[in-house]
Amino acid sequence: MLEVTLLGCGGSMPIPNRYLSATLLQYKGRKILIDCGEGTQVSMKAINTGFKTLDLICITHLHGDHINGLPGLLATLGNSGRKDPVFIMGPVGTKALFGAFQILVPHLPFDIQILEKGFKSNELTPLNLTNEIQVSILDLDHSAPCIGYRFEVKRRPKFDVEKAIANQVPKFLWSSLQKTSEVVFEDKIYNQEMVLGESRRGILVSLITDTRPIPEIIPFINQSDLFICEGTYGSDDNLKKAMANKHMTFSEAATLAKAGQVKALLLTHFGVALKEPEAYAEVARRIFTETKIGQDQLKIELKFAE
Amino acid sequence: MLEVTLLGCGGSMPIPNRYLSATLLQYKGRKILIDCGEGTQVSMKAINTGFKTLDLICITHLHGDHINGLPGLLATLGNSGRKDPVFIMGPVGTKALFGAFQILVPHLPFDIQILEKGFKSNELTPLNLTNEIQVSILDLDHSAPCIGYRFEVKRRPKFDVEKAIANQVPKFLWSSLQKTSEVVFEDKIYNQEMVLGESRRGILVSLITDTRPIPEIIPFINQSDLFICEGTYGSDDNLKKAMANKHMTFSEAATLAKAGQVKALLLTHFGVALKEPEAYAEVARRIFTETKIGQDQLKIELKFAE
Repeated sequence: MLEVTLLGCGGSMPIPNRYLSATLLQYKGRKILIDCGEGTQVSMKAINTGFKTLDLICITHLHGDHINGLPGLLATLGNSGRKDPVFIMGPVGTKALFGAFQILVPHLPFDIQILEKGFKSNELTPLNLTNEIQVSILDLDHSAPCIGYRFEVKRRPKFDVEKAIANQVPKFLWSSLQKTSEVVFEDKIYNQEMVLGESRRGILVSLITDTRPIPEIIPFINQSDLFICEGTYGSDDNLKKAMANKHMTFSEAATLAKAGQVKALLLTHFGVALKEPEAYAEVARRIFTETKIGQDQLKIELKFAE
Repeated sequence: MLEVTLLGCGGSMPIPNRYLSATLLQYKGRKILIDCGEGTQVSMKAINTGFKTLDLICITHLHGDHINGLPGLLATLGNSGRKDPVFIMGPVGTKALFGAFQILVPHLPFDIQILEKGFKSNELTPLNLTNEIQVSILDLDHSAPCIGYRFEVKRRPKFDVEKAIANQVPKFLWSSLQKTSEVVFEDKIYNQEMVLGESRRGILVSLITDTRPIPEIIPFINQSDLFICEGTYGSDDNLKKAMANKHMTFSEAATLAKAGQVKALLLTHFGVALKEPEAYAEVARRIFTETKIGQDQLKIELKFAE
């Protein structure tokens, strides 16, 4: 099961009960954080999730409302007993940013490994999660270089007894072949393909913030089990502002959700002026029924399909 | 009237309902902030105080729990319509810190003028507040260079009619001499000393965090109307930890308050492990009766004595 928790769903400045951009993915006891605005660690403390198992931080862009919680979070991670390296991926400029952070967080008991845009997910091999979660990125259209993220939790194919027998795989090797990709026995190589059935769909979560809607988003989010998307403005009346500030309205996010044939849309990154996002829920639901309005500490659990 | 508001009274890491070090002074519509840990701007938003009139930020030391809220606060100040320069004073290293902040807050519509330790309060002349509030500093004993602050809100002496008559000050100059330091009339200089009575005590607030108790604190805080002091540890049983980490227990803070003959002690900067500071209030009150336990958004109003 993949747990997705909105830690902060505000944009621009944090206000009481609405911290800045941060989303937590939890899978098999490990964590991925997307963005880290001010208040992120407070929200993590509020849900009592612990810090030590945070392996990867994905930064969408280098605006303060998405990164200003990082120095404090890294310090807290340092106090949590973390020793393993922490991976941070983000757009061009992320390495320079961490140069500046050194003065804020001078001594950390773990290494930080930074992957700037252009990384491949196999560069993340030391990461506990990466064997099971594939990370993809997409260039967005904001006032700073900004990337969208897609996370695919891979699902192992079922063990196929008939196939194993047809391929003459000795029965005592079956269990090993569920764990390792190949086994050699009496000079013959047996691999997983000889015993595993058809590939199965995993869990797909995509996260798009901050940006104008662009056509490339549609295939990127296609069939997502959960599409987390910015909705800086609730009312359609704010379209002009959304265009000027390179953000989206609820309607625009819902239109993307519909076009991308996602299973559910979760709106987040509400502007400070949007005091009651729930009041505009129907604006989005008229276009895409399965719309949820985000709030801090809202948790969504996603399971593999039966 | 001087309003003192604890914006955040936690140390080390922010937790729900207890943000990190920040204290706000408000006087005649202007503001001074002492320290700016993560959550400071959320707390300011919670008390609806506005941002634009923040003239001076005093930093005690450059540990993250006292400064990590600064990039976000400065950005919000930039969005508030602030145009006048903002003064920031702090220990050696403060200028270098703001060099690092440039990358986090690249464009601000106001100048930042930084005064590193050693500044004199007359360096602050452009500041609206400095004619009326004198800032003094004291070196403390922490694991990083750290300074304590004392703020004295000056009080004008009363107009002394008998003295003005005795000094043969023409009556039509009396009103001018209440506003300006001297007036020339018919080649004769008349100054305020000729019409004003004895100096009157102002309002004295001192703030000491983070540090071990040192003797120099006692004269520095002497007669404070409010002595805001760190109390990282509630129980006397934590004295050894307090010594090792260069902090104080409630008892130590109360002992300073008593020795400094202050009017009231306000404890703050509680360690994360100190879940219920109020439970240790009596530990401090046994030594110094007028002890208040801080909490976020607690406001104390201080008036001139009758």
